[in-house]
Amino acid sequence: MKRLVAVGLLLILTPPACRPGPRPPAPPDRGRITQVSVINALLLGRYDGVTPARGLLRHGDFGLGTFDHLDGELIVLDGRVYQARGDGVVREVLDDLTTPFAVVTPFDAEGQFACPEVASLDQLDARLDDALHPGNAFYAVRVDGTFASLTLRSVPCQEPPYARLAEVSKRQSVWTHRGLSGTLVGIRCPPWAAGLNVPGYHWHFLSTDRKVGGHVIDCRAPSARVAYDRCRSWLIELGEPAELEGADLGRDLGGDLERVERLRQADPPGAKGSR
Amino acid sequence: MKRLVAVGLLLILTPPACRPGPRPPAPPDRGRITQVSVINALLLGRYDGVTPARGLLRHGDFGLGTFDHLDGELIVLDGRVYQARGDGVVREVLDDLTTPFAVVTPFDAEGQFACPEVASLDQLDARLDDALHPGNAFYAVRVDGTFASLTLRSVPCQEPPYARLAEVSKRQSVWTHRGLSGTLVGIRCPPWAAGLNVPGYHWHFLSTDRKVGGHVIDCRAPSARVAYDRCRSWLIELGEPAELEGADLGRDLGGDLERVERLRQADPPGAKGSR
Repeated sequence: MKRLVAVGLLLILTPPACRPGPRPPAPPDRGRITQVSVINALLLGRYDGVTPARGLLRHGDFGLGTFDHLDGELIVLDGRVYQARGDGVVREVLDDLTTPFAVVTPFDAEGQFACPEVASLDQLDARLDDALHPGNAFYAVRVDGTFASLTLRSVPCQEPPYARLAEVSKRQSVWTHRGLSGTLVGIRCPPWAAGLNVPGYHWHFLSTDRKVGGHVIDCRAPSARVAYDRCRSWLIELGEPAELEGADLGRDLGGDLERVERLRQADPPGAKGSR
Repeated sequence: MKRLVAVGLLLILTPPACRPGPRPPAPPDRGRITQVSVINALLLGRYDGVTPARGLLRHGDFGLGTFDHLDGELIVLDGRVYQARGDGVVREVLDDLTTPFAVVTPFDAEGQFACPEVASLDQLDARLDDALHPGNAFYAVRVDGTFASLTLRSVPCQEPPYARLAEVSKRQSVWTHRGLSGTLVGIRCPPWAAGLNVPGYHWHFLSTDRKVGGHVIDCRAPSARVAYDRCRSWLIELGEPAELEGADLGRDLGGDLERVERLRQADPPGAKGSR
């Protein structure tokens, strides 16, 4: 009986995690990139949020996207979700704000290096291509540094009937910052991901003080620290049929995308200022 | 103390599954379609297996694909993996044979209906389009029946350097069967999945006695039972970089695919017989 009591005590002292009960949520799959919807749906004006932005954290702690009604740029960094709105305000998302399009991954650097001076975002992309030879692979890339110059944009909240993204981006807000410290949050997709995600590098930014953020149009940096994580699987959350109903997702919207995502050196048509 | 003993006994009597120990593998995600690699890699001759075919069962109990060295057609049905070889032999895969391309899902019918007579596979596709209005969605479709006529193909095992699939399919084996009972295993992808998977319906077959199987070129059936399951998320396993290195996956290989997958009514160039 003494022995039985001892076993009983042992079991009682076993941590609660080992007892029957609801399982904790599964950790995100390492090396998996997960996206909500597809980029062509967004380009065609599907801006209604379909899933809570904070729900992205089940799939990763690092990524980017946008919000319901296209209400600003979405940044996921270090396991928190941030909204960089069209009026320049940045806040951490703690409510149930939803997203129509986002991409996240559990960032787990498999390599890092010091990046020498870059004179533009295109040059940063080229340096990464030289270093990673990304080919047909998806990468998450994190760049930390103090930026000599950083041109960001965000978009104003839209109301239905929604205009296409290439139209909305004509009314985007653009800011140029100098000497700002923070993190570029980048997702790199291979060219054949076109239509589903953004081919090449797609960059959002969040400042170290979490007060400045947005979609990156251009940057200059005397040096930066680059960390990268290759993604081994690609999950696309397709949602309910109504969300994509009637959308001609097979169209070549490369021209729209170029206008929206890659307008880097040309003088952007929106408001411009320095804060 | 009596109470403590009682609690101890209770815990001792708790089934072992509730005690500390290795977690059982997670069940496959319902409504998820999972694929190994992308169809364009296969079309370009990437036939080396990259993952064990039986490992597909972690992601689903229903699906199709091919094997290492293109050694026959792969069918996953009711949680078992079958190989329909180019010599006509069908066997259950119980060893570590690998696959370079496959698509599976945990089949959980969300609807079913009796399908009236179909005079061709194209007509079956059309009936499904009428019934499901699949639009931008992915579906798994299971069709059980006795087929008045069924034209199947399989391909012979290849050795490197591999020819492109459109070339290999010129040397495929083709059989026509009459009065055979079994199951069509179908995966339906939207048009914009081109390059990554097969747009439209892709059909493999396995007979009720598990002795006949292959890729379906054509069929006629007086009636059949259709069950379908819409897929809400799409996972692509990308593997290691070497597997896709140098493959121009963004090429439009629609012509190759048409030749390989959709040669339904024309007289196929390979061997033809009736067993």
